[in-house]
Amino acid sequence: MSSATISSRRVYSGRVINLDVDRVRFPDGSEGELEMVRHPGASAVVPFLSDPEGVDPQILMIRQYRYAADGYIYEIPAGRLDPGEEPEVCAARELREETGCTALRMDRLFTMYTTPGFTDEKIHLFMATGLTSGDAERESDEFVELVPMPLSTALAMLERGEIQDAKTALGLLYAAGFRTNS
Amino acid sequence: MSSATISSRRVYSGRVINLDVDRVRFPDGSEGELEMVRHPGASAVVPFLSDPEGVDPQILMIRQYRYAADGYIYEIPAGRLDPGEEPEVCAARELREETGCTALRMDRLFTMYTTPGFTDEKIHLFMATGLTSGDAERESDEFVELVPMPLSTALAMLERGEIQDAKTALGLLYAAGFRTNS
Repeated sequence: MSSATISSRRVYSGRVINLDVDRVRFPDGSEGELEMVRHPGASAVVPFLSDPEGVDPQILMIRQYRYAADGYIYEIPAGRLDPGEEPEVCAARELREETGCTALRMDRLFTMYTTPGFTDEKIHLFMATGLTSGDAERESDEFVELVPMPLSTALAMLERGEIQDAKTALGLLYAAGFRTNS
Repeated sequence: MSSATISSRRVYSGRVINLDVDRVRFPDGSEGELEMVRHPGASAVVPFLSDPEGVDPQILMIRQYRYAADGYIYEIPAGRLDPGEEPEVCAARELREETGCTALRMDRLFTMYTTPGFTDEKIHLFMATGLTSGDAERESDEFVELVPMPLSTALAMLERGEIQDAKTALGLLYAAGFRTNS
């Protein structure tokens, strides 16, 4: 919903997303229909296993099965906001559920629209430091392998096109910049 | 469709996207249902108005109305692939349609999954150089203002959170890195 909404028709209600077809008033006063995937938003987190100010710190990447990519791809831990949940709380929860780790500190890096042409999804990016490991609690359709690696290795994989997930690419570049600037 | 697809049911066919609910075989052999927004893919382009090797080159950003964001947001020119269209051809076409500019040269920067949890959309990022201006040919529901600015200004806006579009953030960071590395 927005100030431009004239009417909204839900054409699909799903487990992860809902799809609306909305009648919209455009900036020039004309009207049209738009398809809009409604999403609650998500948080994603770059987990540092060693001091982010140290030489080439260790981070915790994941390899996750993605049907959309027809296989496993490299990502950072992430997941959807629960109703009313703060992005930082979601980031800590998803980190714990997917990797078993709890973080002493969570710093916000960036908030991104994933693809605003057809969805209102926003992802909030964080970096986590001061990690303690524990047991993961994954959902039954989550297939995740933990892959600790130096940040420099992740950046090299990004440069070679071996990392293609947008939130992961931005998280890594911001985490690398955060180190340089701080 | 993928090697994991058991069956696929189209629940919505739209102008921009289609939505399928697929029965899927997961890596552990179990089965489940997934919602998947099918998208043809897109190209996006960082247009350089001056020599990208020069001091603080000028780029061409756009301000585009996005219903999902309830207003205008800063982006780089982008649009969907036509059937069978090569990403580089799409990038040149979208640049011409949205800004009127034609480019002498188009260099590939990165290919990203926008949000692989629920869509197969990939965006191919390019940088365009050697621009000649002409007349834009926008679609009736595209509301776009051209905003030329120094690359340093765009990067500062990104740092202040005034640019939030994922493809634009990655395009700017890659275009800035391309300058440094080349």
